[in-house]
Amino acid sequence: MLYSKSFINTSREDPKVAECKSHKLLLKANFLYMVSSGIYSYLPLGWRVLNKINKVIKKQMVLAGAQELLMSAIQPIDIWKKTGRDKDLEEVMFKFKDRKSRELCLGPTHEEEITEIVKRYATSYKQLPFILYQIQTKFRDEPRPRFGLMRSSEFIMKDAYSFSLTQQCLEDNYQKMYKTYEKIFDKFRLNYFISEADPGAMGGSASHEFMVPAEIGEDILYFCPGCNNYYKEKGRCASCQGETEAKKMVEVGHIFQLGTKYSMAQEAFVLDQQGKRKPLIMGCYGIGVSRVLSAVAETASDSRGLVWPKSIAPFDASLLVLESGWNQEALELESWLEKEGFSLLIDDRKEPAGVKFNDAYLIGHPYIMIIGKNYRGSAKIEVEKRETGQKFEIAKDKIVDFLKDEHNTESN
Amino acid sequence: MLYSKSFINTSREDPKVAECKSHKLLLKANFLYMVSSGIYSYLPLGWRVLNKINKVIKKQMVLAGAQELLMSAIQPIDIWKKTGRDKDLEEVMFKFKDRKSRELCLGPTHEEEITEIVKRYATSYKQLPFILYQIQTKFRDEPRPRFGLMRSSEFIMKDAYSFSLTQQCLEDNYQKMYKTYEKIFDKFRLNYFISEADPGAMGGSASHEFMVPAEIGEDILYFCPGCNNYYKEKGRCASCQGETEAKKMVEVGHIFQLGTKYSMAQEAFVLDQQGKRKPLIMGCYGIGVSRVLSAVAETASDSRGLVWPKSIAPFDASLLVLESGWNQEALELESWLEKEGFSLLIDDRKEPAGVKFNDAYLIGHPYIMIIGKNYRGSAKIEVEKRETGQKFEIAKDKIVDFLKDEHNTESN
Repeated sequence: MLYSKSFINTSREDPKVAECKSHKLLLKANFLYMVSSGIYSYLPLGWRVLNKINKVIKKQMVLAGAQELLMSAIQPIDIWKKTGRDKDLEEVMFKFKDRKSRELCLGPTHEEEITEIVKRYATSYKQLPFILYQIQTKFRDEPRPRFGLMRSSEFIMKDAYSFSLTQQCLEDNYQKMYKTYEKIFDKFRLNYFISEADPGAMGGSASHEFMVPAEIGEDILYFCPGCNNYYKEKGRCASCQGETEAKKMVEVGHIFQLGTKYSMAQEAFVLDQQGKRKPLIMGCYGIGVSRVLSAVAETASDSRGLVWPKSIAPFDASLLVLESGWNQEALELESWLEKEGFSLLIDDRKEPAGVKFNDAYLIGHPYIMIIGKNYRGSAKIEVEKRETGQKFEIAKDKIVDFLKDEHNTESN
Repeated sequence: MLYSKSFINTSREDPKVAECKSHKLLLKANFLYMVSSGIYSYLPLGWRVLNKINKVIKKQMVLAGAQELLMSAIQPIDIWKKTGRDKDLEEVMFKFKDRKSRELCLGPTHEEEITEIVKRYATSYKQLPFILYQIQTKFRDEPRPRFGLMRSSEFIMKDAYSFSLTQQCLEDNYQKMYKTYEKIFDKFRLNYFISEADPGAMGGSASHEFMVPAEIGEDILYFCPGCNNYYKEKGRCASCQGETEAKKMVEVGHIFQLGTKYSMAQEAFVLDQQGKRKPLIMGCYGIGVSRVLSAVAETASDSRGLVWPKSIAPFDASLLVLESGWNQEALELESWLEKEGFSLLIDDRKEPAGVKFNDAYLIGHPYIMIIGKNYRGSAKIEVEKRETGQKFEIAKDKIVDFLKDEHNTESN
């Protein structure tokens, strides 16, 4: 893509509304547009990152055997009355009536709706187990929307639900999702910690949170810097007996063994091998997709801007054309890269080199490539690896190999 | 995918709530789940089709140089007051207040919001022209939700917006989108007709509708069966002077030259070459994504079920394993096909052949492949082309070539 044709509009000034580092960088680098407090639109750069996050998640969910669907955003209040969660979640539900006075809400979550769907079709143990998931916009009337996508009224979640006949099977699915989440968060290169959690209003027996340490976190854990261990309670480290320090944590994923709370309340039963009616045993597994975008921005940046991991960067690289006359070469390089699945933002703007460098650092491309003064003589492209600052000189026709090598190294 | 592990639950009976052919088939074949009147969830089969539709649209939009974003579903009423459309669309808007008494609505469309976004960043003619688009769930409190996804309270739309400095540039973009829409609707194999339309409440000077003839259509055109021409007015055919007949039509796409209605009302100006403030000249371009799913189902089916075009079928083929012991062979075939980008639903269920055939026809796979009695001796797979009923016998190791040939023939 040519920068000159793109709708990318970085700002030189720090936005006044910014409440934290990621919020500032995502607004300044033009990933997000703030519609109103707690409500955001994803601009092309932000949307590209979100799609990459979704791609990582979907790949792992499919490998785990989960099937994708998309539930409605609007839900009748009736289904919430069955579990009593119309009261539990009353404060955060956006509710309204349609012209026929039907009481409706915008789904803050989808346990009730998925249970209604599954009970309609699942009648026998033979159909079990299965895992269904969706990636969807959810709505919560947050008391304190803040930190951009960290806590917003409209946000994107991946929510998965497993259905089993036995507790053992639920535990197997739970374990499978636990491992799937590790793979997913590894891909995002998040420095996460998994903590046993209280199932709380969700009900059920066991629950784990996937937490990322960040100044803007809302949960507190205690961290031993020597051993890299986290603890829920204040006190000395169990390994080295050293002092622990309080760390604020952001929750990016949460998995629950729900058990039969929903299936009992909503009468979702199947017949078992003996022909007896048994309630479905459920698990649910959430990832805050839009929150991951903010969590990565919050924890992977430096003084010059964002530093995206390769797996979710909006473009795999930016190519700064600093001398005129080389746009055709740049486009040729882009078409080579595209064939291999790499995307390129070609900065062909008539702007000083400094502006181009600043924007490339701010946007946070994993690689910044430069066609500069020496290109005519050498046909070599200067490449800077954003994360480490390493610099390379690569012949134009070796750029594809270079990127492939870099990606292979990371995958291993 | 193995049918036995899938969440596909076709029904033998026709659903009682079905209001038309597509509604009946999409419920019966388990593409959709009806949450409530006018509100649907996409089950795995329906969601696969929707994703394919999106893929076709995105490919063509990118080729046309459009950039994707995602706007918020929740919008402040304030921005609607600027154009007065808070009144024009009052009847269909879902409105509510948040806990801070902000007046909000669920976007029935996004002209106001995109204009707010663009005016924030576009200040100079040098940034023009560009086209932005999104694929998003929209919300309208329909007076008469009906025919499944044809007219529902929650639906998925592709909406694109072009921004230009001059009327000529708008017309160029309009022409580009017109041609892009032809390519898109060709891919869906819809028998569409393009009609000049009245811009109506959208404002602006020119507008075209992309219409598909169907019994459940809500617009009426007059059709000459001899010449295949459509007319807005009743009367004789302009070509052959023959009688025309009334045809009901479903609108699947609509493009508008909006002009400056929104930019003037919302003060979206840029500086032109002479440094004068000029309002942005806008176009908007919609496709009813979820409606396309229903329109194809409505117009491409037979007495046995759905008949998906290859471009948007949930799976490229179904493989019915009618003799036991061949599941491993089926999985091997699937992995060959997957490498070439073809998806396969392997019907490995312990069901009679008749049930498997019925479901395969009902779901509407473009190709039904059979491992039957003769497979042991011949290693040949019987293949039936759903659309034409043609039958082939293909050696297992030639199946990939067969599907490739079939797809190449269609693309040409």
